[in-house]
Amino acid sequence: MPRRSEEHLEMRRQQIVRAALRAFARDGFHATSMADVIRESGLSAGAVYRYFPSKNDLVVACASTVFDAVRGALAATLAAPEPVPPDRALRHILDTALQRATENADGIDFSRVAVTAWGEALRDDALRAVVRDLYAPLRADLTAVVARWRDAGHLAPDADVEAAGQVLFGMLPGFLLQRLLIGDVEVDRYTAGLRVLTASPDTVGNRRATG
Amino acid sequence: MPRRSEEHLEMRRQQIVRAALRAFARDGFHATSMADVIRESGLSAGAVYRYFPSKNDLVVACASTVFDAVRGALAATLAAPEPVPPDRALRHILDTALQRATENADGIDFSRVAVTAWGEALRDDALRAVVRDLYAPLRADLTAVVARWRDAGHLAPDADVEAAGQVLFGMLPGFLLQRLLIGDVEVDRYTAGLRVLTASPDTVGNRRATG
Repeated sequence: MPRRSEEHLEMRRQQIVRAALRAFARDGFHATSMADVIRESGLSAGAVYRYFPSKNDLVVACASTVFDAVRGALAATLAAPEPVPPDRALRHILDTALQRATENADGIDFSRVAVTAWGEALRDDALRAVVRDLYAPLRADLTAVVARWRDAGHLAPDADVEAAGQVLFGMLPGFLLQRLLIGDVEVDRYTAGLRVLTASPDTVGNRRATG
Repeated sequence: MPRRSEEHLEMRRQQIVRAALRAFARDGFHATSMADVIRESGLSAGAVYRYFPSKNDLVVACASTVFDAVRGALAATLAAPEPVPPDRALRHILDTALQRATENADGIDFSRVAVTAWGEALRDDALRAVVRDLYAPLRADLTAVVARWRDAGHLAPDADVEAAGQVLFGMLPGFLLQRLLIGDVEVDRYTAGLRVLTASPDTVGNRRATG
């Protein structure tokens, strides 16, 4: 029997991931079963289970399609000859995530899938571990952006760059939620908002040093 | 028939709200029915429906118990004679929200209820409207903190304070999610992280003004 080409396997895999993303974005994680994904994909149960033995394997694959793109954009940022200011790194991430969210062929809004995943992860230890393993490297990348910015002399040598990485990372779900639930935020203005907080010569940080 | 005292009515109302919060925190919004809340409260269906005709009325009441406390803390901040730096306002909010989350008599973690609500709000227009109506005033309060900070001369006169309010507000869900899903953040360090980003004399904002 001829071995199937790598290309064919990857296309088939992507077909299943797209079907899962459609179902997750529409119905949420909890309400979506493997049977729903199989139906949505138009493939046999055996074919789907061969690629993804469990729903959590599908979750990892779905999330990775977004995270790989975001971390790819950040990798370019981190490799640039000049250190990039934290707000520009934030903008790269949001632009990349939203571009993936709005321009993919199926019109799936990945950010809806993320919000759904958070709620389910609270009641599902395996899913929470999946989410944690996906988020930790992205947050580490953001911490690296801040560390590079510090090493270039823009921050104090003893600046707590991990705490700053937590804050930058924390601004991402805050953006997605306001976009989905309130509907009045956009990337340029949000990242400008970070600059407002950092734009004063008499900075917040300096004022607080004594407080 | 003697009219029931206001105090009695309020105690009964709080009894139902606490029952609903326990059920929502444990099972999520979607999986919790009015019947579940009625059972949890130990009251009759008629009694519960008299106070809360629908599940969304319960959601509003539950969220209000947290939001009222948070906005109360911010009101004191806004009324202080000296303008408060934005990172201190953020710390007040998180401290108040977490205190409410961990020290209430039933041990309910309110932040779990919030995360659950976000996911459900994506698929429930009425709940989304409820969430929006709760979040908008809190975000406006944070914008007012930044405006006061600007008016005191700490920010440029034309600073986009609404954008800064979006960012400060956006840091709240980012904190709750990292706390619940990754588990390694705490309030002092997170707000210190904001100060790191704002602590440089050569600020991010100044660098970006030309970028």
